[in-house]
Amino acid sequence: QSNVTLYGRADVGIGSVKEAGKSTSKMIDNNLTTSRWGLRGTEDLGGGLKANFKFEQRLNLSTGDIQSPAFKGETSLGLSGGFGAVTMGRFTTVYDDVRALANANSVFDSNSFTPASAGVYGSGGDYSSRFGSQIRYDLPAMGGFYGAIGYAFESAADKDDGMTALKLGYKTGALNVALGLQNEKGSDNDYLALSASYDFGAAALSGGYNSRKGSDAKGDDTEFTVGVNVPVGAFDFSLGYASSKTEIGGSTSVKSSGLGLGATYKMSKRTRAYAGLSNVDFKNGSGTKTGDKRIFALGLRHDF
Amino acid sequence: QSNVTLYGRADVGIGSVKEAGKSTSKMIDNNLTTSRWGLRGTEDLGGGLKANFKFEQRLNLSTGDIQSPAFKGETSLGLSGGFGAVTMGRFTTVYDDVRALANANSVFDSNSFTPASAGVYGSGGDYSSRFGSQIRYDLPAMGGFYGAIGYAFESAADKDDGMTALKLGYKTGALNVALGLQNEKGSDNDYLALSASYDFGAAALSGGYNSRKGSDAKGDDTEFTVGVNVPVGAFDFSLGYASSKTEIGGSTSVKSSGLGLGATYKMSKRTRAYAGLSNVDFKNGSGTKTGDKRIFALGLRHDF
Amino acid sequence: QSNVTLYGRADVGIGSVKEAGKSTSKMIDNNLTTSRWGLRGTEDLGGGLKANFKFEQRLNLSTGDIQSPAFKGETSLGLSGGFGAVTMGRFTTVYDDVRALANANSVFDSNSFTPASAGVYGSGGDYSSRFGSQIRYDLPAMGGFYGAIGYAFESAADKDDGMTALKLGYKTGALNVALGLQNEKGSDNDYLALSASYDFGAAALSGGYNSRKGSDAKGDDTEFTVGVNVPVGAFDFSLGYASSKTEIGGSTSVKSSGLGLGATYKMSKRTRAYAGLSNVDFKNGSGTKTGDKRIFALGLRHDF
Repeated sequence: QSNVTLYGRADVGIGSVKEAGKSTSKMIDNNLTTSRWGLRGTEDLGGGLKANFKFEQRLNLSTGDIQSPAFKGETSLGLSGGFGAVTMGRFTTVYDDVRALANANSVFDSNSFTPASAGVYGSGGDYSSRFGSQIRYDLPAMGGFYGAIGYAFESAADKDDGMTALKLGYKTGALNVALGLQNEKGSDNDYLALSASYDFGAAALSGGYNSRKGSDAKGDDTEFTVGVNVPVGAFDFSLGYASSKTEIGGSTSVKSSGLGLGATYKMSKRTRAYAGLSNVDFKNGSGTKTGDKRIFALGLRHDF
Repeated sequence: QSNVTLYGRADVGIGSVKEAGKSTSKMIDNNLTTSRWGLRGTEDLGGGLKANFKFEQRLNLSTGDIQSPAFKGETSLGLSGGFGAVTMGRFTTVYDDVRALANANSVFDSNSFTPASAGVYGSGGDYSSRFGSQIRYDLPAMGGFYGAIGYAFESAADKDDGMTALKLGYKTGALNVALGLQNEKGSDNDYLALSASYDFGAAALSGGYNSRKGSDAKGDDTEFTVGVNVPVGAFDFSLGYASSKTEIGGSTSVKSSGLGLGATYKMSKRTRAYAGLSNVDFKNGSGTKTGDKRIFALGLRHDF
Repeated sequence: QSNVTLYGRADVGIGSVKEAGKSTSKMIDNNLTTSRWGLRGTEDLGGGLKANFKFEQRLNLSTGDIQSPAFKGETSLGLSGGFGAVTMGRFTTVYDDVRALANANSVFDSNSFTPASAGVYGSGGDYSSRFGSQIRYDLPAMGGFYGAIGYAFESAADKDDGMTALKLGYKTGALNVALGLQNEKGSDNDYLALSASYDFGAAALSGGYNSRKGSDAKGDDTEFTVGVNVPVGAFDFSLGYASSKTEIGGSTSVKSSGLGLGATYKMSKRTRAYAGLSNVDFKNGSGTKTGDKRIFALGLRHDF
C-alpha cells in the first residue's frame, strides 16, 4: 500500500497523582505524548508539487476510549511545493508550534511532566491548540527563516469561533528562535509567545515567554518556561521550570509555578521506558498557597 | 498485508453558502464526495467463488468528527461467484444505484453542486440511501443486462424499519439505462426511478425521472434531472439541472428547481482541484418563492 | 509497513430469535465471534525482549455501529521476554482465559450458540470479562505449567472499580486444565472457575465448573458446562450443554440450562460458513419455567 502510511504510538504507565493533599495510585495514560493511530500520505504531483493528507485519532489505553472529536489529532488535506504549503482542515495552530518550541527540552514536552503542560500555563485561560475550519499557509524554506499564518473560519454564521495566528522564526544549526501570535475571536484573547532552543551537544536548552491579553473580567497572563535536556548514552535526563501569573485590573489574582524532571531510556529507536515527576503550586494574589498537584509516573512509549 | 486493502479519500474546500438572503464564507466539507477511510478485501475461495468484505468510515475534515453510524459508508460481508453476489450488512440500496446513474454526469454526482443532491430532490421527503440489516442479491453478468434485489429485515420485533428494493438495467458500450423501485415500510413511501446515461465521447449525458408515492398527508413527489459532462484535457466541465414537485391531495404544495455547474482539474489520477456552484429555488403551490440556497466552493479531493 | 499488522474479522448471519413465545426473523451480528478490526505489533528489542501493542475495535455489521468503548477489544502495551510478559491497558482478565477454556469445544465458544454465553451463565450476575487500568503479568513457559495474575487500579480516587485475578494451568499435548479466580471490588463478587479440555483426535472435549460468591442480597451462583467438537473433513460439528443455579440465603432463586449445537464449513483458512442453534430455559426456585430464549442462525465469518 504505497499511497498511505499507517502509523501510531502507544503510551501508558503507572504512577501516583496527588491533589488537595490526597494521593492516588493509578494507571496514567499518555504521560509523554498522547496515544494515537493515523493515516497519512504524500503524492508527488510532478513539478515539485505534492498533495498531503493526514487523519489521526487519539486514544486512552487505560479505558479503550477515543478522545473527542474522533480524529482529534488531525484531519487535513493540502498542497506543498516551491510556493510553500497550504493545508485545510482541523489541526494545531501555528502559534502552538511556537509554544512547543519553548518546551522542546523541558521534560520531553510531555503531557504529565512538563510544568507548562501540567498545570502552570493558562492560569487565566489557556489558548486553543487546535482549530477546525482552518487554512494554514507555510512559507517555503528561505535560508534559516521560516513563517506561517493560520486562519480559522467561523464554523457557522451564528458562531464566533474564528482564529487568526502567525509565526516567524529563524533556525540555523543549533539555534531555533520564533515569535508567535494568536487571536481567538470567541474568547477575545490575544496570545503572544517568544521561544528559543539551543543545542550545546552535551545539553540542549529551551525556553520561552508568553502572554495573554484578555477582557477586563478575565485579565491578562504572563508566563515563562525554561528546560534542559542531557543525553547520556541511551538515556535522556531532563529538567523544566515554568511560572505563570494572572493580573486582573492591574493586581495579581493567581500565581502558579512548577518543576518537572524525568528520564527516558531508549530500548530501541521506537520504544522508550520513562520515569518522571512534576510538581505545580498555585497561589492567590496575596501569595497564599491555594492548591498543588504532583504527578509521578513510570511507563512505556512505543511508536509504530 | 495481502488480505486487506486500506483506502480512503479526503475532500475539503472553501466557499460561501447563501441561505435566506444571508451569505457566509466558510470551510465546506465533502463538496464532491464524502471523506472516508476504509478496509476492504476479497479472498479467492476457489471455483470462481469469492468472499468480500468492506468496513468504511465517513468523516468531516473541517471538524475532525466522524459521521454516524461510525462505519456509515458500509459494513458488509458476502460471497460472489458464477451465481452472482450475495451481500449482508449495512450499505446502499439497489435503488440508490439507479438514482446515482441519473446524476452520473450532473456536476460529478457531487454533494454540493449536483442540484438533485443539493436540495431539489425529496421536496416531500427523500428516500433512505442506506439500510442496515440488509441482504442484497446481484444477478451475474448476462449480456448487457444487470439486476439486483435488496431486502432489509426489521431491526427488532417492534420496529417498522424494513425495506424492499429492486433494480433492472441494461448497459452496452456508451449506453446505460436502469429502472429502480424501493418500498420503505416505516414511512409507507414507494419510490420509482428511471435513469439513463450516454457517452458521446466529446460529452456524456445523464438524466432521470423519479417519483414518490406517499401517504395522503405527505402526498406524492415527481422529480427529474439532467446533466452533461465535457472532458477537455485534464479538465472536466459539467452542468446539471433538476426540478421537483410535491402534490398533496392533487394540488401542488412545493416546487423546487436548481442549476449546478462545476469544473475539476486532474492534478494526477488520485488528486483533483475543483470549483463549483449550485443554486436551488423553492416555491409554494401558488408559485411564490419561499426560499433559496446557493453554494459556491473551491477545493481539493485526494484518493488513497 | 513492517511495524504494524492490520487485521480483522467480519461475522454476520440471518436467523430467528424466539423469546417470550415470540419469534422474530432478523439479521444477527457476531454469531461466532464479534466483528472487529485492529492494529497490533511486536518489536524485537534484542536479548529476547519484545515490545507488544494492540488496539482493537469491535463493530456490528448490521448497523454500522462500533461497540463501546471505541476500542472495546483491547488497548494494550507491554513487554515480554525470558521473565514472562507484562501488559498494561484495557483487555480481558486472566480469569476470562479460564472461562474460555471451558467453552473451547462447546459450539465454537460462540456468542450465539454456546449456552454458557447465550444466557445460561451469570444467573446471579456475571463477571466482567475486561477491565481497564489493568496490569497483567504472565509467567514464562515452565514445562507445561502456566500462570498469570491481573490487577486493575481504580480509575479514580472515588471509584470502587478495581479487580484482582489469577489463573494457574497445565497444558501438555492433548490436555489443558486451569484454575481461575477473580475478585471484583465494586460488586463484591468472588469468582472461581475450574476448566479443562482434552483432544482425542476424532473429537475434542471441554468443560468446566465455576462459582460466584456474592453479597447476601445477590447470593451465590454455581454453574457448569460441557462441550464436544467433532471435525469431519472441512466440517466441524459441535454440541454444548450448560446449567446454572443462583442461591440466595441457601434457597434456589433461579435455575437456567441450555443446549447448543452447530456446524461450520471451512471455505478456506480464513472463511467459514456456519449454522447453529441454542435453546436456553429459565426456571424459578420452585422449578416453574419463567422464560426461554432460542436462537437459530446461518452466517459467514471471514478473517483478514
